[in-house]
Amino acid sequence: MENRTLRVFKTTTYREKPNSDELAFGRTFTDHMFVMDYSESEGWHDAKIVPYEPLKVDPAAMVFHYGQSVFEGLKAYLSPKGEPLLFRPRKNIARLNQSNERLCIPPIDEGFLLHALKQLIHIEKDWIPSSEGTSLYVRPVIISTEPFLGVAPSKQYKLVVILSPVGAYYKEGINPIKIAVENEYVRAVRGGTGEAKTGGNYAASLKAQEIAAKDGYSQVLWLDGIEKKYIEEVGSMNVFFKIGDEVVTPQLNGSILNGVTRSSVIEMLEHWGVMVNERKLTIEELYYEYQNGNVQEAFGSGTAAVISPIGQLDWNEHQMVFNGGKTGTLAKKLYDTLTGIQYGQIDDPFNWVEKVLPEEKIDKVG
Amino acid sequence: MENRTLRVFKTTTYREKPNSDELAFGRTFTDHMFVMDYSESEGWHDAKIVPYEPLKVDPAAMVFHYGQSVFEGLKAYLSPKGEPLLFRPRKNIARLNQSNERLCIPPIDEGFLLHALKQLIHIEKDWIPSSEGTSLYVRPVIISTEPFLGVAPSKQYKLVVILSPVGAYYKEGINPIKIAVENEYVRAVRGGTGEAKTGGNYAASLKAQEIAAKDGYSQVLWLDGIEKKYIEEVGSMNVFFKIGDEVVTPQLNGSILNGVTRSSVIEMLEHWGVMVNERKLTIEELYYEYQNGNVQEAFGSGTAAVISPIGQLDWNEHQMVFNGGKTGTLAKKLYDTLTGIQYGQIDDPFNWVEKVLPEEKIDKVG
Ligand SMILES: Cc1ncc(COP(=O)(O)O)c(C=O)c1O
Ligand SMILES: Cc1ncc(COP(=O)(O)O)c(C=O)c1O
Repeated sequence: MENRTLRVFKTTTYREKPNSDELAFGRTFTDHMFVMDYSESEGWHDAKIVPYEPLKVDPAAMVFHYGQSVFEGLKAYLSPKGEPLLFRPRKNIARLNQSNERLCIPPIDEGFLLHALKQLIHIEKDWIPSSEGTSLYVRPVIISTEPFLGVAPSKQYKLVVILSPVGAYYKEGINPIKIAVENEYVRAVRGGTGEAKTGGNYAASLKAQEIAAKDGYSQVLWLDGIEKKYIEEVGSMNVFFKIGDEVVTPQLNGSILNGVTRSSVIEMLEHWGVMVNERKLTIEELYYEYQNGNVQEAFGSGTAAVISPIGQLDWNEHQMVFNGGKTGTLAKKLYDTLTGIQYGQIDDPFNWVEKVLPEEKIDKVG
Repeated sequence: MENRTLRVFKTTTYREKPNSDELAFGRTFTDHMFVMDYSESEGWHDAKIVPYEPLKVDPAAMVFHYGQSVFEGLKAYLSPKGEPLLFRPRKNIARLNQSNERLCIPPIDEGFLLHALKQLIHIEKDWIPSSEGTSLYVRPVIISTEPFLGVAPSKQYKLVVILSPVGAYYKEGINPIKIAVENEYVRAVRGGTGEAKTGGNYAASLKAQEIAAKDGYSQVLWLDGIEKKYIEEVGSMNVFFKIGDEVVTPQLNGSILNGVTRSSVIEMLEHWGVMVNERKLTIEELYYEYQNGNVQEAFGSGTAAVISPIGQLDWNEHQMVFNGGKTGTLAKKLYDTLTGIQYGQIDDPFNWVEKVLPEEKIDKVG
């Protein structure tokens, strides 16, 4: 039996909160974090909320050497009534366990982690910024901590949840980005770890991003690693194209991350009666449709930006400009609707939003 | 200008050394470690040998989230005269920089790292075990330490070198292993990070190893990630087959690690006048040659085992048994020669071995 008690140890030295309009992404962290350990004999145990501080990790800890780690990313938003809201947190926690499965990490109790997340956010609710477009980014991460230099699944892990107040992704309103198709480097391949949220995928992506950035692009568009022709993702976002009457997005194939925003976009479009087609889409086909004037919009989807319109996509010597380089009506409507739901400003027909209630009881205060 | 001073802070609490015959691989660490930090303003700096102790790492450190890390593995051996010897350490250090390049990590000064390695080994020379087949495993690792949740190369790093006394790989003499061809999971793909020694490749490999181990195999044989037919590696080793008159090993292609042992095997075989063919080799071709009685030996190569004969290779319903499941003469001769050179017991025609000399000066003792 695993231990399901959550203890809370409050800090004595509170940090200064940044101004809402000075927030960068992922650089400021709150006063507390949630930690939980795993050992073979005790399972996941010793769950506690403690002051944010450096972890003491053995230099031989497997995470440093063999990259056995998984993470998640979601956000807490402040509703007009000042209540903290979470957007589909159960999807993130379920995906964390899917990533665990691929990385040979023991599964976590999803209900308990959700409970712990909410407790942590409740304690840190004054850290949720209130200016338009701001939120509190929630980052669960599991690292392998056994000090052992053999290539094998670790027998010890640490789960940590840290929180970071983040600024509006679009400081001057939603703005289209410029993307280059990546032909050389590969982010993930079928049979690899692409559908898991694990560090190695991101480490593999750095080089291509660095080169693209030098050439003036925000992100790269990743093609499949096998035939280098099927569109997979854009940077760390899923991708959608409005082609003729339908919206096309690459079908999940093992190397594409199953985005929570992607699911939400698909469900919302279907709710609106827009045809969505999850299928294979080659870059050649996209370019062909583009030349025939059929590609009206392109956009990425992800927790950080929600919807990120693609103004321009360069593929070798070919340049595609979508919707005159401006944000399309569908992208704008999706952005407004999804963020409206996330901030509790508009009706939530799918019950995607969960409140972080103050009355959730804290098991024991240390 | 980077700072090239190496300071030494000795421990006051020495650990107990394990018995030479009780040594496992990678579980015991010595009294000291080498550490060096990188920042944008100072470059690689603050090089020091300090007591082995947990690292204090921010929970937002990029290595935990985005897997930006690289490592190396080499060994120090005790010569018959009791001198510590290193086997081709410059190759490992050069490969560390090749891995750095792929992972967007700033390069290290190779000469300085070699100097630091030797100092560390010299200080820990009493930790080098002396029983047959034992050695001191040397593990340099670089981790990204900037506390930042954006997907971008870190601006801060830590290089750590730890040492672990390791037992004889073959307790009862060199022993053939049983391998299964992996058809589903992929370790690395061209355009990915396979030729870099970075955590994500090993994390990706765990699942297949785990399944194979349940079925009674020591390791899997990895096929290429694109066509799933070309032989790449065996577990974390390069692989060789004696087919007819020549020895065939997969040619480096971007997804295969350029093993130091692999290079040494190739050079040694050529020195002996054995024909070596670095080329593409499909599993079908291997099986075809096997059925025609042409495959006389198969073995893996790597720092840990040096040479690991493959007794049996299972590919779907096909079973290949090499040399009657026994260690082949070529594998044995390579093992004896390479280990003989590594331990300074026999002539070293290539000058592969470097002494760790006591007189190398320590810059400053803290
Ligand atoms: C590789 C990758 N693809 C897609 C996404 C979008 O997923 P989600 O909508 O769940 O944030 C993310 C970010 O989380 C990602 O890292
Ligand atoms: C994936 C992989 N292939 C091959 C090798 C063999 O390389 P080396 O001979 O340099 O130890 C290793 C181990 O270092 C490895 O991790």
